[in-house]
Amino acid sequence: MGGLGGLSGVGTWCRRAACTAFAVNAISIAPAMAEEWPTVPDELFEALNLDRDVSANDLYEAVAARYYDEAQGYGKGQFSELWEPIAFSRYMDPALYEGREQLNFDVSAEDCVTCHESATPGWVHAWDRSVHADLEAIRALPEDDSRAYKIEHLQEVEANLRSMGLLAEGARLTEVGCADCHMGVGVKDGNHMADLRLPDSAACGQCHVRQFSERESERDTLTWPQDQWPAGRPSHALSLLANYETAIWAGMAEREIAEGCTMCHTTQATCNQCHTRHEFAAAQARRPEMCANCHNGVDHNEFENYMMSRHGLIYQTNGGDWDWEAPLSEAFASAGYNAPTCQTCHMGVDGQYSHNLVQKVRWGFAPMPSIAENLAHPWFEDRKDLWVATCSQCHSPSFAESYFEMIDNGTTQGVDLVQQADAVMKGLYEDGLLVGQASNRPAPPAPDEDTFGGFFGLFWTEGNNPTAIDYEYAQMWEQEIMRHFKGLAHVNPGGFTYTYGWSELIASLARIRDEDTRLRERHALEERIDALEAAGDAN
Amino acid sequence: MGGLGGLSGVGTWCRRAACTAFAVNAISIAPAMAEEWPTVPDELFEALNLDRDVSANDLYEAVAARYYDEAQGYGKGQFSELWEPIAFSRYMDPALYEGREQLNFDVSAEDCVTCHESATPGWVHAWDRSVHADLEAIRALPEDDSRAYKIEHLQEVEANLRSMGLLAEGARLTEVGCADCHMGVGVKDGNHMADLRLPDSAACGQCHVRQFSERESERDTLTWPQDQWPAGRPSHALSLLANYETAIWAGMAEREIAEGCTMCHTTQATCNQCHTRHEFAAAQARRPEMCANCHNGVDHNEFENYMMSRHGLIYQTNGGDWDWEAPLSEAFASAGYNAPTCQTCHMGVDGQYSHNLVQKVRWGFAPMPSIAENLAHPWFEDRKDLWVATCSQCHSPSFAESYFEMIDNGTTQGVDLVQQADAVMKGLYEDGLLVGQASNRPAPPAPDEDTFGGFFGLFWTEGNNPTAIDYEYAQMWEQEIMRHFKGLAHVNPGGFTYTYGWSELIASLARIRDEDTRLRERHALEERIDALEAAGDAN
Amino acid sequence: MGGLGGLSGVGTWCRRAACTAFAVNAISIAPAMAEEWPTVPDELFEALNLDRDVSANDLYEAVAARYYDEAQGYGKGQFSELWEPIAFSRYMDPALYEGREQLNFDVSAEDCVTCHESATPGWVHAWDRSVHADLEAIRALPEDDSRAYKIEHLQEVEANLRSMGLLAEGARLTEVGCADCHMGVGVKDGNHMADLRLPDSAACGQCHVRQFSERESERDTLTWPQDQWPAGRPSHALSLLANYETAIWAGMAEREIAEGCTMCHTTQATCNQCHTRHEFAAAQARRPEMCANCHNGVDHNEFENYMMSRHGLIYQTNGGDWDWEAPLSEAFASAGYNAPTCQTCHMGVDGQYSHNLVQKVRWGFAPMPSIAENLAHPWFEDRKDLWVATCSQCHSPSFAESYFEMIDNGTTQGVDLVQQADAVMKGLYEDGLLVGQASNRPAPPAPDEDTFGGFFGLFWTEGNNPTAIDYEYAQMWEQEIMRHFKGLAHVNPGGFTYTYGWSELIASLARIRDEDTRLRERHALEERIDALEAAGDAN
Repeated sequence: MGGLGGLSGVGTWCRRAACTAFAVNAISIAPAMAEEWPTVPDELFEALNLDRDVSANDLYEAVAARYYDEAQGYGKGQFSELWEPIAFSRYMDPALYEGREQLNFDVSAEDCVTCHESATPGWVHAWDRSVHADLEAIRALPEDDSRAYKIEHLQEVEANLRSMGLLAEGARLTEVGCADCHMGVGVKDGNHMADLRLPDSAACGQCHVRQFSERESERDTLTWPQDQWPAGRPSHALSLLANYETAIWAGMAEREIAEGCTMCHTTQATCNQCHTRHEFAAAQARRPEMCANCHNGVDHNEFENYMMSRHGLIYQTNGGDWDWEAPLSEAFASAGYNAPTCQTCHMGVDGQYSHNLVQKVRWGFAPMPSIAENLAHPWFEDRKDLWVATCSQCHSPSFAESYFEMIDNGTTQGVDLVQQADAVMKGLYEDGLLVGQASNRPAPPAPDEDTFGGFFGLFWTEGNNPTAIDYEYAQMWEQEIMRHFKGLAHVNPGGFTYTYGWSELIASLARIRDEDTRLRERHALEERIDALEAAGDAN
Repeated sequence: MGGLGGLSGVGTWCRRAACTAFAVNAISIAPAMAEEWPTVPDELFEALNLDRDVSANDLYEAVAARYYDEAQGYGKGQFSELWEPIAFSRYMDPALYEGREQLNFDVSAEDCVTCHESATPGWVHAWDRSVHADLEAIRALPEDDSRAYKIEHLQEVEANLRSMGLLAEGARLTEVGCADCHMGVGVKDGNHMADLRLPDSAACGQCHVRQFSERESERDTLTWPQDQWPAGRPSHALSLLANYETAIWAGMAEREIAEGCTMCHTTQATCNQCHTRHEFAAAQARRPEMCANCHNGVDHNEFENYMMSRHGLIYQTNGGDWDWEAPLSEAFASAGYNAPTCQTCHMGVDGQYSHNLVQKVRWGFAPMPSIAENLAHPWFEDRKDLWVATCSQCHSPSFAESYFEMIDNGTTQGVDLVQQADAVMKGLYEDGLLVGQASNRPAPPAPDEDTFGGFFGLFWTEGNNPTAIDYEYAQMWEQEIMRHFKGLAHVNPGGFTYTYGWSELIASLARIRDEDTRLRERHALEERIDALEAAGDAN
Repeated sequence: MGGLGGLSGVGTWCRRAACTAFAVNAISIAPAMAEEWPTVPDELFEALNLDRDVSANDLYEAVAARYYDEAQGYGKGQFSELWEPIAFSRYMDPALYEGREQLNFDVSAEDCVTCHESATPGWVHAWDRSVHADLEAIRALPEDDSRAYKIEHLQEVEANLRSMGLLAEGARLTEVGCADCHMGVGVKDGNHMADLRLPDSAACGQCHVRQFSERESERDTLTWPQDQWPAGRPSHALSLLANYETAIWAGMAEREIAEGCTMCHTTQATCNQCHTRHEFAAAQARRPEMCANCHNGVDHNEFENYMMSRHGLIYQTNGGDWDWEAPLSEAFASAGYNAPTCQTCHMGVDGQYSHNLVQKVRWGFAPMPSIAENLAHPWFEDRKDLWVATCSQCHSPSFAESYFEMIDNGTTQGVDLVQQADAVMKGLYEDGLLVGQASNRPAPPAPDEDTFGGFFGLFWTEGNNPTAIDYEYAQMWEQEIMRHFKGLAHVNPGGFTYTYGWSELIASLARIRDEDTRLRERHALEERIDALEAAGDAN
């Protein structure tokens, strides 16, 4: 035993096809592939009919053209006739931004800082701390600085701009100033009213072609094999479309409340949901709290689950010592992470990190029977394998596989509770027995239509629509099953078992069954009274 | 375009009356005004009939006299006959503190540390870390130390004590020891039972006249134009009075539960709710967590909303690098804040920072129709302008204005839901149809009186008071509308739209309407049975 | 007054029997007692019939023998016939761990790191950061390093191994490698399938005899005088037994959900619930977040309460500056804590710190009448005195005593609300009036039996079991009263008064009474209809 024998045994193990962890790591430590745009998935090139060796300019043109195409998700969506933006909306969606009415004067790029240092100093200070404010400082970073990888990023940006004809051969960028983003790359002056724009994702993408393309590739890698979701969704790349085309969002009268939804769904429109303006710090975007801005709360409590998981608790105790300036590829090496973050798991695929965060999505944002029933399909199996490889950086593949079995079975058990409730609700609705159903159940505002437990009922009420159990059921299928799944997926045991998830689903189902019995018993009583009255009349 | 033309355009802009941001910043960087007590609002001087050039002694005398005046909020309040303090109460309210029964012996000021180093070392260690323990160390701070501003503070304190005859001309303070606060400034010995006191706000105020006056000025700057709240409330300065004069607080039998309320409401009585004893560190009091001690939870989740807002998430990721020792006026400059804290927004008015935190209060602690209907009144408009100026340190005034429009409209929409529920509840209550209303609805303990959805029902129950929907409605008007507003005001979109606030209000209103239909239908059934029985009897 | 008089007065005070704080501190600064195993309570030696001067080997043998005794809590418990582990279970409970089917090859201890550095680098990196990876580095620590206490720990471990014959006289440990834990102390090679084990608490205990014995002594110090709980529970030492012997846990069909419970209850089986593998850092285990992994949520929100208490808020603001490497005995001294942590209060007894965390438990995990009624019993009184001494490190004993009076009275008031609800529920259940009780109330899965408000109803539902108020009542006695008590005990005033606890109990009781009236009125209506129908038939 031991010695050469042992090593040869190891060799055998590591050659096993099942040893996905090792295989994945082999990829991650392989020399950079000769392939162009290696972190942009094939699916994007296929969708846009591009070759992999496309130039930066052509790639950007194609990605941006689709980004701006109303037929493919840009703009106000199919219910645009039904709603009007409020004043605040234009700050959430650059497509709605109109020129400023008041400040009609000409400015040069140099004026920006001079005046805004007094007018809105916060903007200027934030920019001043940013990489954008001093690109020479980046170039001067010593090789062993964990930010040194940005030197290459900068060269890439310059190459992109040269490919677009926006930077002369031999010229170099020294800073990215206000006007570059708010008027156009390289623009030197303009009118403060007519020429100012609110930068959108495509504006950032002009310099950051690769990152923009990665993000936009989310449209292409979400190809649900049984059409569980529309193609390309749910994703950051089409999140604003999803918002605008949600019936109750478009139909509700209270536009300020609706705007609260938009405030998260703006990821399609801007990059600064993750890269806070005007510092845009990658080091900050790597922190779990930046995901929390949207990924929290009643319908998808990822942040709460992560923070209460072993992973998140290690982050809370040790994260202060990790090097947030290092790129994600260095997380478990020189950056010293001893637990994963949102970013290391969700941005990493096969040892590569990108701005496409949905390549491993399986249950998505809605555990439902059509997913539960198709988990054996290769689309789901392949994605599970990618997940197992992710976990196997720190856990054994068999541990990871057994935990994924637990996630899938546990989630399916939760879906079954929702289905049981669905049957009860459907029965009551079809029998016309919901409280007030016969007398006082107005339809929700168009384009929505009435149904039992509709999503609309979480945001709108009139008469007896929704009833108490309509709301309860909407919570089940839209919130509790999600918290249940998210608790399982983020390894927060108290979360999915008890505090949220399973026990909540049990409570809701019990309440719905309680009401079912009650309404049917009441109906029977009423029929007996009808009969007594009829008998009395007959007398 | 550009050049001089641009600059002159800028000049035009900055001269605009609407350019509040610039105006405010101009004030904040202006040299200190010659005015005495510049951070104490005019309203306090008017209320106390003092000139602005009043001496420290006279200012303190007047402020403290009012502080101790039972007719103006000191002591146990108008329901004092109804409740008795428990043993713990005396530690929350120095006015209830009685001499210690047991430790009747004489001590000198020097003995304190000697004995308590063994007896309660935590006290001594905390004091030892405090500024109070070594004032010479403060005097020795180099000019570029961010705590150097405390040298001036110390001189101010010495001037105050000289004005009161408590410090000789030429003498200087070297430390503030136990006896100075627990027996009296400069007292050297006393009886451990008879002479010990629990320091109150006025005890701190003797040295810190300015800060005490700022805090006490909260009574004067809350002058609700339509009497939405009693004058001077809701405020830290009268929070204990508000506690003692809440009917259910005074009337409930469970004094330990009531004491839980007092534990937050003690801000009127002490300064150490924010300045934790015995370190009293300003650096700690500047952290959002210190506000969280009270400002969290079911009825006003400010902390939760802040922490999940972009502002709070930046604090969570970057706050560790900010200089907490620097004064708030340096927050966005040398202290390096790149997001606001509770303190920078709520303590700052027109570029000045003070311990009056209510000068910009508009919706206060209870969004209600009488506020919603009067937002165009100058009192509310002026305060909104001060808020817009606060936000405009980092956002454009038009962005801030549009967001305030969103807060106001969104909150008003929530208030409307509460009003709809109110009408339903009133109808049921007046018709005597609430569950058990006719048979088993005892009155709440005096001084409270029965009503539908009363505040008392959140803390007390007997028979069928409150009913399930009484409690639900109390949650609406006292908690959900507050969380809705607080979510809007603290920019936590998921918070007000979905997780808390709007969707909760929808659910509660739907449940109340569900119950309304159910109770009225049940009543109709009962009448039909009555009729059948009457018919039967007639037969 | 003052001077000698003062000092003599102080002397009188400090000689008082009531001055528990001083007495305790005297103990904590006394030289180490000559007694062997001073931190292991007498109760363990009595229970195992050992002398205090027992050798490490004999102590370990006895403690481990009991640990592995199925009659005393090892293994699958009394309902083991009813459930099967899932694949993931074997990673939670080493007793269920089976050899790996696949990796049947021989390895030497040196191979582990070589291969796993590629296969699962996270394991290797974590171990590499651990004390285990370089014991010489520990020996080389300078005396003033806060980790220097580990030198003595290391000597103790070596003495333990010598006592067991696992380390030769004169030999010394240089590292603890993979095989030492996963194959056996000192083992040099083995078969990757047959010889690998998942280390359990006893595996850690072989080196860490004292800590293992402290932990195991929890079985012995929880001797409830009125049998409120089974002996030795609730505790970490028997937590897995408690899990396996919970009727609904054993009986429920959804094993993945049940596994969620196990994920916390595994503390009996492993040490790495607190000492995260493979770093096992004591510095991390001292952080409140490590307790939070289990102690959070709907049924015992200790972490949430702590973090929102003054204590936790100070931790949040200042904890970053405390020396987490220092032992707990240095917490308030050289380590610079200015607030307590979970660990300083719950691991400390009489100035000593140990891994028995239940020596001061009084209300435990379930405030109930049998505790409320017996608080004057010496068992509870003595434990309260130990608590008061703990608090008196930073608070006056009279403050601490008054707060304990508040905890006890406030909790008792909450228990009274639960009792009132119990009476109503019992009445409805005995009268057969719960919704669906007569027609559609299936029994829960064996070994559970039906009752009103049973624990099973939080995790299982079928037909009309549980009803809405069964679930509500289960929340009261199992969750809300706990949150109420935990809020009181962890000094989170909004927590117990309002957000959780008291106000929730009020709401639940009100809803149950509402339903009681409703069901009884409905029943009366039905009887009237019966009578009318009978009269009609008679006609």
